[in-house]
Amino acid sequence: MSDALDRALAASAAEIDEAMGDLLPEPSGPEARVHEAMRYAALGGGKRLRPFLALQSGALFGVKPELMRRVAGAVECVHVYSLVHDDLPAMDDDDVRRGKPATHKEFDEAAAILAGDALLTLAFEILAHEDTHDDPYIRAKLIGRLAWAAGAHGMVAGQMIDLAVEGAGADIGTVTRLQRLKTGELIAFACEAGAIMGRASRDARLALEGYAHDLGLAYQMIDDLLDVQGDENAAGKALRKDAARGKATFVGILGPARARAQAELLAGQAARHLDLFDEKADLLRALADFVVHRTR
Amino acid sequence: MSDALDRALAASAAEIDEAMGDLLPEPSGPEARVHEAMRYAALGGGKRLRPFLALQSGALFGVKPELMRRVAGAVECVHVYSLVHDDLPAMDDDDVRRGKPATHKEFDEAAAILAGDALLTLAFEILAHEDTHDDPYIRAKLIGRLAWAAGAHGMVAGQMIDLAVEGAGADIGTVTRLQRLKTGELIAFACEAGAIMGRASRDARLALEGYAHDLGLAYQMIDDLLDVQGDENAAGKALRKDAARGKATFVGILGPARARAQAELLAGQAARHLDLFDEKADLLRALADFVVHRTR
Repeated sequence: MSDALDRALAASAAEIDEAMGDLLPEPSGPEARVHEAMRYAALGGGKRLRPFLALQSGALFGVKPELMRRVAGAVECVHVYSLVHDDLPAMDDDDVRRGKPATHKEFDEAAAILAGDALLTLAFEILAHEDTHDDPYIRAKLIGRLAWAAGAHGMVAGQMIDLAVEGAGADIGTVTRLQRLKTGELIAFACEAGAIMGRASRDARLALEGYAHDLGLAYQMIDDLLDVQGDENAAGKALRKDAARGKATFVGILGPARARAQAELLAGQAARHLDLFDEKADLLRALADFVVHRTR
Repeated sequence: MSDALDRALAASAAEIDEAMGDLLPEPSGPEARVHEAMRYAALGGGKRLRPFLALQSGALFGVKPELMRRVAGAVECVHVYSLVHDDLPAMDDDDVRRGKPATHKEFDEAAAILAGDALLTLAFEILAHEDTHDDPYIRAKLIGRLAWAAGAHGMVAGQMIDLAVEGAGADIGTVTRLQRLKTGELIAFACEAGAIMGRASRDARLALEGYAHDLGLAYQMIDDLLDVQGDENAAGKALRKDAARGKATFVGILGPARARAQAELLAGQAARHLDLFDEKADLLRALADFVVHRTR
């Protein structure tokens, strides 16, 4: 990873952690437990890839960082909610997340379900607030786009397919669609959010969408590879579970070598979508390279 | 119940069922199961009290019914999501809802969690869409208000308190706050939604908020009474469960006679909040009377 990207990722992770600390509810009252579960799940962990993408896409169009931080925080709320719910025993049944007990293990299932529900709701509350953008048209557009990415035609559909094809096998077309929905749509929203906030041209928005989709698939292919070949301590979650569960993965279908080659191809393609931007997109270009060379 | 209210409730329930049929995703693809679970949970059942309130409040201010139906549908999506998640084994563990198996019994827990997530998300998608109102300020305002009512300071907080005080006992202040949050906030949103859509005066909006809070508490007191005294077949859900679980209820604290007297007092108070409206509010007045005299 380039030093510049390394520093930028660390700086943006710290920035987002602070922003989310302010956006999340402070524990209070007899309902404090759900606030604590929200903060436990959302603070102090994760690569913060989606917020980074949102902040970088905002920077391309000169959006004020304090506004983009709110949007990036909303995106991360949706991502964290999806992790909390996906880790539940009835779903993927994962006990470790981001190097610590999953929320339903640290608290209990009820608190985890409610914390996820509240994080999802908070994302829309943040975006609807006038502090996010003074033009309500922009706020409503962000909300509509995020809801589409997260809902029954996006992330939720992807998770449903993931569970439905478990153990049943799937072809490359199904796995590609599954991953585009399950992780790609939210990554695409993160990349497009800056274009929406900055009233960028349609061409610029579509270029970011193309970048996001290729980046998201490359990222997932490496994720599948790391499940097979990676180090659990570095990953901060249990590995070697995909095969045991009969999960449909790129590595399972393509094999490790072809999955890596395909990921590298996609990462190169992702970077080329950025050709219409100047050096302000260099960190996004570096990120495309990073996602296929990461070790965790 | 007055004949006029009886007819209006039936007409609005049919109207909302049709509107929701259009708003909910049609099952398709390998993710069809979650679409089916959403439709199973949301269609063909329930008193549709919240949509009725939304439609009536819109009518007070001359909002076009086809717009208010979208808002009413969004409110009902949030209500149904809360029922689906609350019925899960890790939460209230209820197997029957609206006279049929709960969603996690008819499908499974994973599909029920995902269907709830998607219904919540859909509510915001509906409100963000320009078909709901041509002024994005109104759409963003509805979304912000709904997110507040549903999230960590509203409905989710109420459910957390409900679980937290189970078996531990609670005083009347705690139960009142619990119910204001758990059911009152969404009822208040339904009542205020018409005022927001119709750009009503602050006085009109506050009057509806007052009506909603008193109506919501009266409704809940009778709900608690029906859990003790009601008929399971008529209710369409299991009864006599509150005491067995050590749930904090109005009846448990006040006893049946005082709970009923208090509910009647609140219903009268609810109706008086409507004094600034003309006969267009008569159905809302009749509803306040109905909620304390209902038998299911």
